[in-house]
Order: sequence, then C-alpha cells, then structure tokens
Amino acid sequence: MTSLRFLSACHRLPTDATPVWFMRQAGRYMAEYRAIREKYTLIEICQRPELAAEVTLQPVRTLGVDAAILFADILLPAIPLGVGLEFAAGEGPILQNPVRTLADVNNLRPVDPDTDLGYVLEAIRILRGELGDTPLIGFCGAPFTVASYLVEGGASREFLKTKTMMYADPQTWHALLDKLSRVLTDYLLAQIRAGAQAVQVFDSWVGALNPADYAAFALPYSQRVLKAAEAAGVPVIHFGTNTATLLPLMKEAGGSVIGLDWRIPLDEGWQVIGYDRAVQGNLDPAALFAPLPELEQRVKDILRRAADRPGHIFNLGHGILQNTPVENVKAVVEMVHELSQGVQQPDPRSWKVDND
Amino acid sequence: MTSLRFLSACHRLPTDATPVWFMRQAGRYMAEYRAIREKYTLIEICQRPELAAEVTLQPVRTLGVDAAILFADILLPAIPLGVGLEFAAGEGPILQNPVRTLADVNNLRPVDPDTDLGYVLEAIRILRGELGDTPLIGFCGAPFTVASYLVEGGASREFLKTKTMMYADPQTWHALLDKLSRVLTDYLLAQIRAGAQAVQVFDSWVGALNPADYAAFALPYSQRVLKAAEAAGVPVIHFGTNTATLLPLMKEAGGSVIGLDWRIPLDEGWQVIGYDRAVQGNLDPAALFAPLPELEQRVKDILRRAADRPGHIFNLGHGILQNTPVENVKAVVEMVHELSQGVQQPDPRSWKVDND
Repeated sequence: MTSLRFLSACHRLPTDATPVWFMRQAGRYMAEYRAIREKYTLIEICQRPELAAEVTLQPVRTLGVDAAILFADILLPAIPLGVGLEFAAGEGPILQNPVRTLADVNNLRPVDPDTDLGYVLEAIRILRGELGDTPLIGFCGAPFTVASYLVEGGASREFLKTKTMMYADPQTWHALLDKLSRVLTDYLLAQIRAGAQAVQVFDSWVGALNPADYAAFALPYSQRVLKAAEAAGVPVIHFGTNTATLLPLMKEAGGSVIGLDWRIPLDEGWQVIGYDRAVQGNLDPAALFAPLPELEQRVKDILRRAADRPGHIFNLGHGILQNTPVENVKAVVEMVHELSQGVQQPDPRSWKVDND
Repeated sequence: MTSLRFLSACHRLPTDATPVWFMRQAGRYMAEYRAIREKYTLIEICQRPELAAEVTLQPVRTLGVDAAILFADILLPAIPLGVGLEFAAGEGPILQNPVRTLADVNNLRPVDPDTDLGYVLEAIRILRGELGDTPLIGFCGAPFTVASYLVEGGASREFLKTKTMMYADPQTWHALLDKLSRVLTDYLLAQIRAGAQAVQVFDSWVGALNPADYAAFALPYSQRVLKAAEAAGVPVIHFGTNTATLLPLMKEAGGSVIGLDWRIPLDEGWQVIGYDRAVQGNLDPAALFAPLPELEQRVKDILRRAADRPGHIFNLGHGILQNTPVENVKAVVEMVHELSQGVQQPDPRSWKVDND
C-alpha cells in the first residue's frame, strides 16, 4: 500500500489515502538519530553507508511515513569539487576555498559520482534491500542553491556575494552554474541507477531571487538537472521556499511534482502551477509545535485545499526543525492517512492533460 | 519640488518626477555615519536628538533623496517596556528579559512616548527646522515584528518561539499584541504631533506567516496602528518583506502606500493591491552592488512597470546593505529622477476610487 501511495500521487493517480513524508524526517529531533550522532559527525554518518542507511530507516520505522528520503547533505558533491567543506559544530557548513573568480571555477575538480560519491550510492543499494515496499527518494541541491554556498563560503541571509557575482561577473556565474549543473545531473542520475525510485531537487534558497533573475541565472541550470532526471523515468520533485512569485518559472524548469512552502495556500499554489503537475506540501514546520487540536485543524485545512484531487503529497513547507516533538510528527502521519482515506477521485483534468 | 514629489506620490497625484528615498539610507555604508558611529553606540545616537538629526540629514545632503527618514530603531519602544534591550557588537539586538508568559506581558511597563521616547520627538522637532522643503518620515515597527523580537529575545530566522506562542498560548500572544499595538499607536501619533509628515510601519518579518495566521494573529493589531495614523491625516506607508501572498490582507490592514519587496514584479504587486493605493519599491538592495549599466537596466525595469501611473515611490525592497557603494545609491537617485521626468499622467482610475 505504502509504496503505491507515494509513487501513484507523483503520477497524479488516485490513492487509498494521501501519502505523507517529511523533509529532514531523519535528524536531531529523534532520539535514535541523536544516539548515533553522539558517536559520529554529520559527514561520517553520510560517508558510512550502513550508518546513512540506518538513519534513513529510523523515521520510516517510527513515523509510518509513505516514503524514505536518503540521509545525506546537499553539499556532499562539494567535497570532491575541492572547496574545503567543513561542518563547524552548530554553525552549519563552512567552505575553506569559496568560489569567487573564474579561476576558482576552473580549479574545481571533476567529480565522478561512482567513485567520489560512491558511499551515497552504496547507501541507496543497502536501503533498497531494507526498505521493502517503501519507496526511496534520492536528492540533490539545485545548481543555484549549491552555488550560493560555494560563493558565500557557507550559509547566508542576503546572498550578497552570490548576487554580486551574477550582476557584476556573469561570465564566472554562468561557468560555475554550467559546471554544477553537470555535476549535479551526473550525481542524481547515479542515484537513480543505484535504485532511487524518485528524486527531489532542493532549491531551498531560490526565493531570494526575483523572477527575472531566476529566469536568467537559475532556471536554465535547474532545467538541465530536472529534465535529465525526468528522462530517466522517475518522478522528480522540484522544491523551493519563498517561491510564491517563482512558481510558473519553476514549473517551466521542470519537475513532475512542485513543492510549495506554507506561505502560499495549497489551492492557490496548485492553481498557479496548473493541475498537470502534482504538488507537495505545505504545513509550516512550526505548526508541529502546536497542541494536537490546533495541529489537526491545520492538517485538515491543507487536505481541504487539496480538494481530494489526486496528486497531492503531504509534507511540510520546509524541513523539520530541531526539537520538534516526535509524537506530533507521528500524529500528523496518522491524521493525514485517516482524514484522507478513501476520498480521492480521479481528476478528469489530469487525465486530459496526460493525453495531450 | 522635492517636498511635493514625495507627498504628492503618497496621495497618488502626478509629480514632475518619481520620488525616491531608501530604507536605511542613513547607516554604516556612509563615511559620515561611520565617523559618528565610532564615537557613539547605536542607542546613544538615537537618544541624543542632535546626533539622530545629524545622521538623518547625512543622506539628504549626500544623495539628493526626496524624503528624510528619522534615524531610530524599531526596538526603541522596547526600552521603556523594560525588556532589557542591548545591542551587542555585530550581533544585533539582544533582550535580557524576553516575553514568554502572560505574567511577562503583564509585567511590561506602561510607555508614555512624550517622556519615555521624548528624545525621538525632539529629534523630529530639530529636523523639521533643518530639513526645509524635504519631508520627514517617522516610523515604528508593526506589532507582529516588534513582538517577534520580544518573544524570541532577539533576531530570528524561523520565528519558532513566536509561532509557538501564537499556536499554543494564544491568550498570551493576543495580550502582548494588544499592549504593543497601543504603545506603537501612541508612539506613532506622538511622532506625527512632533512634525513627521508621513509615517512608515515596518512589518519586516511578517512574511514568515501564512495568510491565515497573518489574518488571525497580526492583521487586527497592525490595523489599529495604521488606521490611527491614517486618521491623524498623514500618508501611511505599510511595509513588509516576503509578502507576495499577504498583499491583499496588508491592504485590508491599512496604509495609503503599500511597500513591495523585489520578489514580486512591481506591476504584478500593484495589480494585486489595487490602484486605489500608492506603492513603494522595489529594487533588490543587492542590485546596488551591480555595475552602473546593469543597475540602470533594473531601475528602468521598475519604472516601466510603474507605467507612469501616479502613486509610485521608488525605493528598495528592503534596507540598504552594509558596504553598499554610496556612489551607486546616488546614481540611482539621479537615474530615477531623469528617467521619470515629466512622464506622469493623472490616472483616471485613481481619481474614480477617491470619489467612491
């Protein structure tokens, strides 16, 4: 059942209940994860396939979600690129060699996912053996979001160095994005070959751009990654935050499923995107800290806005926050399944579009 | 001329050229400001009316903008509230006594703007004597944005404590917002009495909320502040960021001018808001780091989207960033004035709405 729910919804087919999974469903809010994290760094967990697989499985066991997402970090491909990635305790990623010039772009090392990121692929192979019916989602960062870390040298609020490169040195920007889109495409295709049954492209910070900048500086590169993954025959989820004004362009870039954050009501977002795509979202991660009756009201509101139309995957609008109460996450899985059970009807519009 | 441009545009009347000013136009990117800031803390500058006035005048002299905005901080009212406000070097505001419980709300001290924030009012009086024809904008934070600092104890990215209070302890939230809306209304009205010729209400972080939460937890309190200022007879600018999905509700809350950030194209944003309001915006502050030809193209694009319709005030989508090149800011003022000169026509639609 579970496996059918998620993959069917990606294809906008009716399901017995709305599928649900959570971005960052494996992580520090879970005691099982913290127990492993005490002994290993984040990168060590990622680089030891048996640990990455174990951490990926934890929320599947505990929460009853309809899909597993590989435990990894969007910056893993930055390691073989040679930018000196480190994860400082509590401070997020720091890059010793940020990319600021065309020479820096040219100095990025070639990446062969099979050898340089083989540990990710091995984790996928282990997981496919362990997961049984639950489908496994692979993922990568979108070129813009990965580039923003490379240029800023870490996380950012204003993305000023990134935007300054776009505006003042577009040659370097396009060279960087060209290279990243190749690396990320190869990496995502390798994940699909290793057994990922769906993939998500995280353009988490793309909402910092206005539509014109998105179209000029991000879209063509996201499109390459998304279209290559689509051509490989698996559902492709295209995710970003703060994207209310970017949704039509994100659809153009690609993805069989478009992610919505909580700022746009699900029905409005779906209408803007069009019913020829599935949507994923869009509970505010902070709502998981609400008392259960309040939380249930918010889950109901999202399901009501999905209007029993096939092609809705329930998720948050962004990743699970640290200190989220596990019991509330589990309760949301149960609410989504119970409240949506047996109500979906085939949507003639979606079939019509399929036949176009 | 200058004084007419800004105030006329607020009233959607034709002007000889599009007025322009910049949020955070006084600040560290200016050498004149840094010279003063070396000797005094941020709060000292705010609390010494002659210094606050001097810093307010600096960009008016250097840039040729069409309006001055009082140099102050949206958290000044937090000082008499008794939350232990400090500005740690380079870290932004920190509150020693954050507001977490109903008892904390009840313990907030009453604020009399004439005595507790008299230094702000004195700066306004000094400035009105110095500014000549250039109009002076007063301002305050919106209740939601000020509350977010009080609850979080400082700046925030996720606004988790704020949202958790809304969802789990709405009684405390509403008590806090009720109190803040009274304090902020009194403060803003005192600024108008002291001589501010327009006011801006900064709801800078409200884009963290979805529309339903905005309507329930922020709108009624913003509305009180905005409507009271409107009733005092001056133009009221209502500003937020990440507000693409909140604009209709922000209009409902009030403001004769609605601020737009760069994420929404100006024409789309104005259409959503309706032509019975003026709009302010919306250049990406990062664009000020672009080479001049690139910057000019962006300025032209915004003016083109304003379509010569009276009621556009040129500004950024958020405040000027540190290290912004002053010469580029100055160039934008010149570009806006030159490119828009003599092109505005009265908009019959705006007159029609005025007569409704």
